Amino acid sequence: MLEKLIFEKVSNKNFENFLFLVDKLAEYEKLTPPDKNGKNRLKKDALSKNPKYEAYIWKLNEKPVGYIIFFMTYSSFLALPTFYLEDIFLLKEHRGKGIGKQMFQFCINTAKNKKCGRMEWCVLNWNKLAIEFYEKVNAKPLSEWTYYRLDKKDIKKLGKK
Amino acid sequence: MLEKLIFEKVSNKNFENFLFLVDKLAEYEKLTPPDKNGKNRLKKDALSKNPKYEAYIWKLNEKPVGYIIFFMTYSSFLALPTFYLEDIFLLKEHRGKGIGKQMFQFCINTAKNKKCGRMEWCVLNWNKLAIEFYEKVNAKPLSEWTYYRLDKKDIKKLGKK
Repeated sequence: MLEKLIFEKVSNKNFENFLFLVDKLAEYEKLTPPDKNGKNRLKKDALSKNPKYEAYIWKLNEKPVGYIIFFMTYSSFLALPTFYLEDIFLLKEHRGKGIGKQMFQFCINTAKNKKCGRMEWCVLNWNKLAIEFYEKVNAKPLSEWTYYRLDKKDIKKLGKK
Repeated sequence: MLEKLIFEKVSNKNFENFLFLVDKLAEYEKLTPPDKNGKNRLKKDALSKNPKYEAYIWKLNEKPVGYIIFFMTYSSFLALPTFYLEDIFLLKEHRGKGIGKQMFQFCINTAKNKKCGRMEWCVLNWNKLAIEFYEKVNAKPLSEWTYYRLDKKDIKKLGKK
């Protein structure tokens, strides 16, 4: 059978497919997926007039197999937007066919078209397969920087209205 | 003399003050500041109808002493916006007076008001003073993640229009 690979921007029509894949990534990363309210927010935040992120899904023979989420950040010293890749995920059983490479290439092309100064993303340190994949395209780990975070409960505790 | 500290959103009126402080941060971080074209883009990107970032400056007795740049990113698993602090900088000679603490508190308050799930930022590993400051507010380094980057020349080389 001839394999048919397509990609689509997320929409009302394919949003269930997208949410299925988000759950699969959370499972793979051993992280907590969005709950029901979270999934409703994800939909509103993608499909509203001023979307908070952009997302695309890939389908192989009409079945959802992978997705990406990205948005623009900004570098003050370059004074240029950065393409920030929040999620890139391909179902395990479809790896090794070049689909992940096509998905990542789509991101690079989008970064180029949007005249970004950089493309950035984070990877879990144990995810050796992903790290090998990124190093093949000459991506550099930013080892001179440390990433810091305050969680929601800290913001709530420390923040004043 | 009574010290008078105020803060203002960047605007046409105070943009030169803002650019002066951006140069000072680049000097402090031993990084390359934006060139003339970069500074023009910074202005357009802050003051256009759809700004790419938000910035505020602090003035002590009418002299610019510090600034912040931030924008919203997004967490797919929380399905909530993240307050991302791109730059926070206070002139060396004005540290130790509690001004930096007020600037950082402004960020936390904004994150709270915008109902963010997280607040995030990066720090150069050698910047011990900043790290001490962040750890006092209970911020956590994300040591299980590695940050990756593709530079503009890689995007240009690898990207297809």
